[in-house]
Formats: sequence, structure tokens, C-alpha cells
Amino acid sequence: MSDWPPEYDDRYLPPPGARYWFRERECQDPEARERDVLRKIQAAMAWAWERAPFYRKKWQAAGLEPGDVKRLDDFSKVPVVTKHELREDQAARPPLGSYLCIPREEVRRIHGTSGTTGKPTAFAIGRADWRRSANAHARIMWSFGLRPSDTVFFGSFFSLYLGGWGALAGVERLGATAFPFGAGVPGQTLMALRWLREVKPSAFYGTPSYGLYVAEKARAEGIDPKELGLRILFFSGEPGAGIPSTKRRIEETYGGACVDTGSMAEMTPWMTNAECEFRSGMHLWQDIVYTELLHPETKTVLRFGQEGVPVYTHLERTSQPMVRLWSGDLATWTDEPCECGRTYPRLPRGVYGRVDDMFIVRGENVYPSAIEEVLRATEGLGEEYRIIISRNDAMDELVVQAEVRPEAGARPGGLEALRADVAARLRAVIGVRATVQLVPPGQLERTEFKARRVIDSRELFRELTTR
Amino acid sequence: MSDWPPEYDDRYLPPPGARYWFRERECQDPEARERDVLRKIQAAMAWAWERAPFYRKKWQAAGLEPGDVKRLDDFSKVPVVTKHELREDQAARPPLGSYLCIPREEVRRIHGTSGTTGKPTAFAIGRADWRRSANAHARIMWSFGLRPSDTVFFGSFFSLYLGGWGALAGVERLGATAFPFGAGVPGQTLMALRWLREVKPSAFYGTPSYGLYVAEKARAEGIDPKELGLRILFFSGEPGAGIPSTKRRIEETYGGACVDTGSMAEMTPWMTNAECEFRSGMHLWQDIVYTELLHPETKTVLRFGQEGVPVYTHLERTSQPMVRLWSGDLATWTDEPCECGRTYPRLPRGVYGRVDDMFIVRGENVYPSAIEEVLRATEGLGEEYRIIISRNDAMDELVVQAEVRPEAGARPGGLEALRADVAARLRAVIGVRATVQLVPPGQLERTEFKARRVIDSRELFRELTTR
Repeated sequence: MSDWPPEYDDRYLPPPGARYWFRERECQDPEARERDVLRKIQAAMAWAWERAPFYRKKWQAAGLEPGDVKRLDDFSKVPVVTKHELREDQAARPPLGSYLCIPREEVRRIHGTSGTTGKPTAFAIGRADWRRSANAHARIMWSFGLRPSDTVFFGSFFSLYLGGWGALAGVERLGATAFPFGAGVPGQTLMALRWLREVKPSAFYGTPSYGLYVAEKARAEGIDPKELGLRILFFSGEPGAGIPSTKRRIEETYGGACVDTGSMAEMTPWMTNAECEFRSGMHLWQDIVYTELLHPETKTVLRFGQEGVPVYTHLERTSQPMVRLWSGDLATWTDEPCECGRTYPRLPRGVYGRVDDMFIVRGENVYPSAIEEVLRATEGLGEEYRIIISRNDAMDELVVQAEVRPEAGARPGGLEALRADVAARLRAVIGVRATVQLVPPGQLERTEFKARRVIDSRELFRELTTR
Repeated sequence: MSDWPPEYDDRYLPPPGARYWFRERECQDPEARERDVLRKIQAAMAWAWERAPFYRKKWQAAGLEPGDVKRLDDFSKVPVVTKHELREDQAARPPLGSYLCIPREEVRRIHGTSGTTGKPTAFAIGRADWRRSANAHARIMWSFGLRPSDTVFFGSFFSLYLGGWGALAGVERLGATAFPFGAGVPGQTLMALRWLREVKPSAFYGTPSYGLYVAEKARAEGIDPKELGLRILFFSGEPGAGIPSTKRRIEETYGGACVDTGSMAEMTPWMTNAECEFRSGMHLWQDIVYTELLHPETKTVLRFGQEGVPVYTHLERTSQPMVRLWSGDLATWTDEPCECGRTYPRLPRGVYGRVDDMFIVRGENVYPSAIEEVLRATEGLGEEYRIIISRNDAMDELVVQAEVRPEAGARPGGLEALRADVAARLRAVIGVRATVQLVPPGQLERTEFKARRVIDSRELFRELTTR
């Protein structure tokens, strides 16, 4: 494919009233799109085969070479890549491993995972990749309603995590104004509120946890979050914005649209799962990053309507292209039309769990997001909660701690009725009995960044008993 | 001036072996440069006069209009601008005041002061300004030896503070690799060390305090900071890197060049005070930002060799141009030639104090930087110190607390000899007696960002007695 990697005109903007950035690509007939995707997959695989010992070795071991992908169906023969493999390859050939496909001097940025749960992974992004990704971001932001006249407040952490940097590059490419405030420094949220009231940005970017935290701080200061005048709040880094009850809570709190975006750190700065202005689940922008949904065990490609693991392939990245990267996330996909007219498949419920986050309590699969959904939908509960799984003799114990709102005690039946109500709803949704504990407002520690709300103390129990 | 504002070719790079980015501008005959500077001042003033009620009102009140600046000498008639005036103007016309000289939709970024000591000031930077400033940064970075083959670790905070963002834009414009790690999050420094050892960047950017803090953490982990292989460490946000003994300590610690840069938050993203590779004081890049040194009280322009207050004028900024902004800093300037061959004036001792930071103890002017210089030059002392001024009845008390190194007690004469030595040196340099207290290593709180090491409790005393 001679026109790969693609180049974009960095000055292009759609006409002001246009719904689409690139109408032909976004509303393309899915079969025609698949032909284009196939050519891009072939080009990306040939690129990686020539330059990345990591891929060549992996594909050779599977008895494959790029020429073997002649139809899109053939792509399912290509083995998936796991994060574990990437980490191992980097450990063997530090710091960037053997899958960097551009000369070192063309690397514009180095980022990485926070490495809080193991050896960190380093990411390298090339100069041309950065520009392509900014174009992709701007195009996707256009689909959820951002325009050059917007001012975007960034309540996200600017450090190793690439998501916020990619969004910033997108906002700048779009020609909107960026106000990169940051996050993560203790005590900074009151100052964020002061600036939100002063500068009056029209859009907010961060994690859903942080969005809710800012609202809580605002109320504590006697400010109705609606007064801030945020028209669009878009999120990544956590699944919350795709959980219907959390989305509703954010929209009711701020009076603005809550937009879910985000795929995986290894795919960033691209962020090609994103809701459009109609917010009926994230579209998969297949012409930029090709996403498949695979069965968690057999790894076969699933039909629309089924639940499985998103697997991602960069179609426009030359630096560290990911080819069939296993996310470990859980989602359902659909090809039902969206009101916006784009013909991309969608994840109608977002990314709502992880194959490995999912935990088993007394034989039942339990997703933390299902518990969050119940809690957010219950009136009288506050913003924060904890899920604690422990073992009482041979039996799993599931404890859900939820903060109540100050006024909750005044309800008919008081706190005990509320507690019983939550327990009954949880039982109905997750299928197992949980011990519900209501705790006073503000008692649970706030998470300003990626929420870590599930505590599985069985792990500790196992560790202690097997040593 | 029809070619104002200037435009730069964003792809230009000097040939690899070149010492200068723009030889003709950097080595220009000073008189010829002054003619060019005059034309740029005239253009910038005309621009501001047409667009900024703030400047028009101010200049009209002084009986001036832009056409009155016919020779460079006339410029001294233009009244200086203080930060206080900018804050007041923004308070009256929030959020950006009446000195924004571009349409709101051309603003690319909004930043601001942290506002820790009063109402914050908001900064707006235009799209074209951002590109011009990135070009200026890259050019200045070239002068202190950064090249496209370098990888720069950013140990600075990405938030409201513009300095780090400007440096990042400069590194990217230069074509070097940026690794924007960030700072300011508790506990992050150990992770920074891990990444420094893994990725092996060749350059470091941050505050001098943070540079020394990283070295201290490294030693505590059994790592010699020299092993990190940093070739260039450049700093802004604090004056330390220009204090000879601090510079020496940083260079001896890391085995790399310590480069001082930085002017004022209101001047950023431009940072046109910067040392070249010879590190003999910051050059004033007069063709980008025009700097004068004024007498602290009479506000007349001082001759070379004298000490006064730097006053800055943007020559290439269209968004919020500063025309004669009073820094309140203290410096000495010289036109003695530098080994690099550039004909810019220099601040041979950097910015070493503030008119308002300077405190008076028993009738003597004392600069915190002079105390720092003595402490850094004394063997056996650690990284951290505090200066406490209090009042004992009617007498000022000056207490200097300094951390010792673990091995200091083993010196001949022990700690008492060290204490007496520091007290004698301080007396000789600052002219007043100070009570010196040596404290164990690690006892004083570390400052990861802007060092706040002077505690003047007389203020409190005054407040309490005048209410």
C-alpha cells in the first residue's frame, strides 16, 4: 500500500455546521470499509515484519507471514499480543524492546505505565504518529460536539499517562483553547473550582471519579456544579462514563453531556473508542484503530450482540504499532445504527469490566461495574464506595461499603430501609448476597485518579497460607 | 513595521556542527541590534495601543503615544507595568483583563499563577505566539548544547505554571525526545529514579531544588547520581542554578553542565534569560525579549556593571504583550564578551534576589541567596536549610538552620567546629550575626517545587500588634 502511513492536512477543518469531519470515512458502507481496513492491516503488518523482531518472531512461530492475510477473515489467524509479552520483551531489550519500528531519533515522546502493579512499560511515539493521532483526536472530538470556540479544562494528570496528553494534542489540533490545569496534587481541587468559576471553560476532561469529586467539592463550597456552565464533559482512564447510572448522575449534576472515551494505554495517544454527541455507547473508529471482539477463552471473533474482549490493531501508527493487542476488558458490541449516521460498530454499554477484574464469589461471576451501577442508581447514596471480598472460613464474603448523603437519614424508614434496599437490588443484579454497610459522608478515601475501589483480601489470605 | 509579528520556519535547523542557531542575530553588532530592537518596540507598542485599553489608558495618562518612542532612549519614558496592575485589571475585567490583544478564539492556551499569595493572574497565549516561543526556546536550547539527539527528562510540574510547558514545546521544536515525567506528586521521586536509570535521558529539566532532591534520593538508594549519565541539567523557576556554589554542587553531583534559565511567569512561555554552554551568567536575548536594568527607586536605566531590577518587554508576542514589566528581581548586568561570541548582555550572577525578598536585619540588607551561597560552599552541610527572622523584644533575630551530612560529625572538631565556621562565614558575607543551628539530615521538609525557605515571623509579630 503505497499511501501508507497516511498523512493528514494539519490545517483542515470541516465547515462550521458540518456533523462529520470526514463524512465518506465515517458513513462508509461497512463492506467497503472492510476492504480499506484490510489494505491498512496488510501495510501495518508488512511495516512491523520488516522492522520489529518481536513481531517477526511471534508470527514465524505461528507459521505466518504478512502475505498470508489475504482476506479480513485471515486476520483472525494472527496471534494476539498480551501486555505481559510487551513487558517481557522490554525487560530483555531495555528500554523500548524489539518492537520499535522507527529510528530512535524520530521518537518525539517517551511515556509509560505507572508501573504500580509490576514493571512499567515504556511507550515511544514518533513525530509523525503524534500528528496523525492529534488529527484522529480532533476528528473524534468533533463527533461529540467539541468546536474551535470551546475552552477545555483538563482536570487530568500530565505525567507518564498518555491519555491526557493525547486529548490535549487533539484539542489544540481542533483549534479550541486548552486550559491544562492538571490533577493529582493534594488540595488542588479547591483551586480548580476557583479557576472553573473564573475562566468559565465550556468543556471538562478527566476521569469520571475526578468529575464527581469536583462536583462534591463544589457543593461543599455552596456552588451548584450547574453554575460552572460546562457543556461537554468527556472522560477516559476509567469506565464510569459509560455506566448508564454514572452517566446520568454526571449529566444531572453538571447539566452537560457526559461522553465516554478510551481504549488502552498501549493504544494511546490514539483514543478511538468514543461516544458521539448521542452518547449511546462508544463507536469503534475502525479506519484508525481496528477493533475486534473475541471470545475470552476460544479467542474466536464474536458476532454483533455478543460479549467478549476487545482486541485492538493500530492502522496508522509507525512507532510501536500494536497488532491484535488483547485488552483483557469486557464489552458487548453491536452494529445497530446510531442516530448520528456513522456506520462504525458500537460498544453500547462501554467497557464495563475486565476478564481479570471480574471476581468470583461463591461460584458467581461478579463485575465491579455492576455493583457501581446499582449504587449510583440508588437515591440517598454518596459518591464513594468500596467492594471488599474476604474469606470467612471456607466461604467468600462480599462486603459493599457505600457512603450515604447527609440527608439520607431523614428518609422514610431511615438508613436501615436504605441499606435493605441496596442489599436487595445488589442481590437481584449480581446474583449473590452482599453485606451492605452504609458509612457517613466523606469517610472513604477519595480517589483523584484511577479509582481503586475493589479490595480482594482473599489474595492476602491465599498468600499467607501457601507460603 | 510591516514584517511584525515575525514568522519562523518551523522546520529550520542549523547544520549539526554549528554553534549558533541564527548567527547574524546572536553575534550582531550591539548598535545595529538596538536599531532592530527599536523598530520591534515601535511595532509592539502600536499593536498594543490599538488593541489594549489597559496600555492606551496607561500611556495616555503618562502623556505618551507609541509615536513618541523615536529613539531607543525615548523608551525609558514609558511607565513600567507592575504585576499588581495586571491583577487589578483582570479583577475589573475578568478573566483576562483589558490587555489581551488577539481575538479570544485565537487563544491556544490559558495558564495562570498559582495564586498562593493572592488573587491568581490568568495568562493567554495565542496560537502564533506558541509557535514563535517554541522557536525561541529551541534556539536558546541550542546555545546551551541541546541537540536533536538528546532525550530530555522533565522533572517539572505540568499545570498552571507555564515554564515547563514552554520548555517542552522548545524541546519538541528542536526535534529532541521529550520524556515529560512531571513532579509534585508525593512519592513520585523514587519512580523518577527508576525511569532515569531505565530510559537514560541525556538531559534534565526542573527546579534546582528538585535536581538536588533527586540526587539525595539517589544516594539514599545507593545510586551515584553520576551513573544517571545526564549531560545537561537546565533549570528554571528558582534562582539556584545561577548561584555559583549551587551550580558547582549540581555539576559535581551529576557530572553534567548546570544551566540557569528563567525570567518571569508573565514573560513565559518565552524564557529569554539563559546561560549558553559556557555558563558564565544568563544572556539576555534582546532581539526576542528586550531587557533593561533599572534603578530600584529612581527607575532610570543603569549602566553595565551596576545592580538593579530587570524590566522586560516582549518583542514578538501578540496575545498579552508585556511592555516594560517590572520584575522586582535583583541582578547585575554586563556587556563583557562571553566565550561563546554572542553579543548579548549578561547577568553574570543570574537573578540573585528580589527587591521585596531582600530583608533588613538590624539595618543591613540581607539576600537569602547570599546565605544559600555560604551554606552550599561549606563542606559537611546537606541539601536543605531554613532562614528564620524573628524579633526578640526590639531586636531582629536571624536564625539559619542547616542540615548536616551524616559524616559531618566525624570531622576534626566535630559539629561545633562546623557550626562556628558557618557562623563566621555568614557574618563575613552578610554583615550581621546569625544564630546557626545544625540539624540532623532529612529533618527539614523537602521542597519539590519552588523553594520557600525564608520564614519571616516579624510579619506575624507586626500583624498581631497592630490590629
